[in-house]
Amino acid sequence: MTDCRAVCPHFHRAVELIGRRWTGAVVYVLLGGPARFSTLRSAIPEVGDRILAERLRELESEGVVVRTVVAASPVRVEYSLTGKGNALAEAIRTIAEWGRAYPGSTPDPG
Amino acid sequence: MTDCRAVCPHFHRAVELIGRRWTGAVVYVLLGGPARFSTLRSAIPEVGDRILAERLRELESEGVVVRTVVAASPVRVEYSLTGKGNALAEAIRTIAEWGRAYPGSTPDPG
Repeated sequence: MTDCRAVCPHFHRAVELIGRRWTGAVVYVLLGGPARFSTLRSAIPEVGDRILAERLRELESEGVVVRTVVAASPVRVEYSLTGKGNALAEAIRTIAEWGRAYPGSTPDPG
Repeated sequence: MTDCRAVCPHFHRAVELIGRRWTGAVVYVLLGGPARFSTLRSAIPEVGDRILAERLRELESEGVVVRTVVAASPVRVEYSLTGKGNALAEAIRTIAEWGRAYPGSTPDPG
């Protein structure tokens, strides 16, 4: 065992981004396709409007989510994943698999 | 597009656990093998003692990390991953890969 280990900065940045409260949930829902604000809100009932809007803005500024105004009547706004956002699918899948395999918090020494 | 989507609760719980500030970093370091508190601290220089201790306690109570007192002189305390913790390796790897592929925050529509 060495005392010189370091955390990969790319990993650190990525995990703190998708782990931010509700952010992973937003990406999870958008992997199913573009969604309106109201769809996101009903898919994540515990999140409030203000926090959801804040998370969406953060994801936009990270280039993970894009906000599109759809020219319809009435005009509607949709959120969807960019290429960078869709590339999270594999990470989301493996996290979900781990969560399913270990749903509780029972210690499992080994 | 349907308006009825839901976030998998196992995914949600898992991503909010490993995304908690510094938690992913701790698991990342421990994937390299058992580590003492001081090793973890030097691997994650930005984290303070109090927060690191708190994260380790949370990971212990989740059954992800186990704390072992090694009978040596002087006695030393080591932290290591449980089976549940080691099972995070694949998720950590895919998150790190995404972080490496998209290191910046430049928007990438598509």
